[in-house]
Amino acid sequence: MGLGFIGQEIARAALRSEEVELIGATDFSPSLTGKKISEVLGVPAGTFKVSKDLASAVGKRRGVVLLHATGSKLPQVMDQLLEAIKLGLCVVSTCEELAFPYFRHPALADQLDAAAKKAQVTVLGTGVNPGFVLDRLVATAAQVCGPVHHVKVTRVVDARTRREALQRKVGAGLTEDEFFKLVDAEQLGHVGLAESAALCALGVGIDCDDFEEEIVPVLAEEDIPGGAFLVKAGRVAGIFQSAVGLADGQEKVRLELTIAVGAEDAADTITIDAEPKVTLVIPGGVAGDRATANVLVNAAPRVKSAEPGLLTVLELPAGR
Amino acid sequence: MGLGFIGQEIARAALRSEEVELIGATDFSPSLTGKKISEVLGVPAGTFKVSKDLASAVGKRRGVVLLHATGSKLPQVMDQLLEAIKLGLCVVSTCEELAFPYFRHPALADQLDAAAKKAQVTVLGTGVNPGFVLDRLVATAAQVCGPVHHVKVTRVVDARTRREALQRKVGAGLTEDEFFKLVDAEQLGHVGLAESAALCALGVGIDCDDFEEEIVPVLAEEDIPGGAFLVKAGRVAGIFQSAVGLADGQEKVRLELTIAVGAEDAADTITIDAEPKVTLVIPGGVAGDRATANVLVNAAPRVKSAEPGLLTVLELPAGR
Repeated sequence: MGLGFIGQEIARAALRSEEVELIGATDFSPSLTGKKISEVLGVPAGTFKVSKDLASAVGKRRGVVLLHATGSKLPQVMDQLLEAIKLGLCVVSTCEELAFPYFRHPALADQLDAAAKKAQVTVLGTGVNPGFVLDRLVATAAQVCGPVHHVKVTRVVDARTRREALQRKVGAGLTEDEFFKLVDAEQLGHVGLAESAALCALGVGIDCDDFEEEIVPVLAEEDIPGGAFLVKAGRVAGIFQSAVGLADGQEKVRLELTIAVGAEDAADTITIDAEPKVTLVIPGGVAGDRATANVLVNAAPRVKSAEPGLLTVLELPAGR
Repeated sequence: MGLGFIGQEIARAALRSEEVELIGATDFSPSLTGKKISEVLGVPAGTFKVSKDLASAVGKRRGVVLLHATGSKLPQVMDQLLEAIKLGLCVVSTCEELAFPYFRHPALADQLDAAAKKAQVTVLGTGVNPGFVLDRLVATAAQVCGPVHHVKVTRVVDARTRREALQRKVGAGLTEDEFFKLVDAEQLGHVGLAESAALCALGVGIDCDDFEEEIVPVLAEEDIPGGAFLVKAGRVAGIFQSAVGLADGQEKVRLELTIAVGAEDAADTITIDAEPKVTLVIPGGVAGDRATANVLVNAAPRVKSAEPGLLTVLELPAGR
């Protein structure tokens, strides 16, 4: 469900996987519904057409997992999730707030959990961020540690390696004023960082009682070419966001995300202060869109065989 | 069970964990049985004494997980595992061959699985290697990948950072002749590398039909000081081992383990050839003994809440 850029990537990843079969697709856009799926995806993908609604996309198939990519905020997509659950589908969604819905929407989370249990299906929000680099991978790495004192994860993405829409999404080319206006209107900024911080704390066994978030622009010190457009000196090149988890006023988890045109030393770096200390580096960082699609597709069979209810990535097994 | 060096580390890790409680200990050595546990561990650890047998160490406690550290090879420890299962205990063991017993001992694996299911308990072999760096972490990292074409993992350990027993265990100080005699007698070499290769392949979704193992000495090019003893030029400094998984004669998984006095650039490095490619580096590498103890203790609550039967680390969830 949802054949935007990421949804199409997910569909193509599903076609490449030996574990799942792509049986249908649905989107709300009139420009897509009724089109042959192969035409939309640009690759051979079966004979079905994009359906207008979920029920007709699924038909009479059983054991279906909905791969869902329509929105970042849980209230936006709640009706879609409930409809899927009612149809008896498991759900794996890119919805960032669904990665840890207890954080911002505990009542909606409870509602989803109850509905999923009643329908005997399983619902999961995942992706690369939230869902992998800043939470699931951290919890996995911390398996070799004793009690964890502090976790720091930095993710630095050079937006030039990403599509233009993402460069725009992080504010590249804006003035500082325009940047903060969009932040205030909640139209700019990565959704899900605090969810990752909460998941990360839970996954390594730290009880945080407070979380703080910050978002500031990364400004271009000189003209930055090489992206979809030139970012002039003094303009916004991208975002720097942080989410911090605290216990008794003391910082326990610090996640820092930089996505900017021209960002240097792109990498994902996990540093766990514990006995023993662990540092884990992914040079260049996990590629965003393609990796997100794979994470969703690889999770589908795991979600299908999990206990019914609302799941988090911390409960997923390591293997395919 | 088993209060050798690693067993004692496990007991101390259990004391530090908020998730488990150390309730008893057993060892076969007459020099340990009857001693107070605090005396054996050198830290306050409760009032019980080291028992001569498992049943009396457990007493009437229910919901017990046995942390087991007595041997590397499955046939050696089979009776101990079956006894624990019969007593209704879940088991988490350092036994390297138990990490993927289907590889070398399919009949014993089936026997354990049946016994565990009958007793409604769960049995797992884990550690850092096998159990984490070369298999579980690889499978986790590959969640962001599409179909995996090839995996290479290298683990380089400078044995000078480890205890003397480990330096001896990898042959440091021997002549080449002595080294190969011990290898032929199966008294030298890391146990579990091929098990990791099989687990790794399974975890990333590659069907391997053949596995090859190799072990050769790392020779000291000059005198190497700094270890528990001087390794003279020309003598063995440690081991280089590899395990390769193949499909239709083509290499798909390559694990390379170097443990040598003076080994340079100690690190764990995972390289996954897929779309997207992923490289993951742990500079310095995951520390061996302490980390192994933590992995076992952190797995205990997960194993207790898992389905009955024989488990592999690929089925463990990410979080604590």
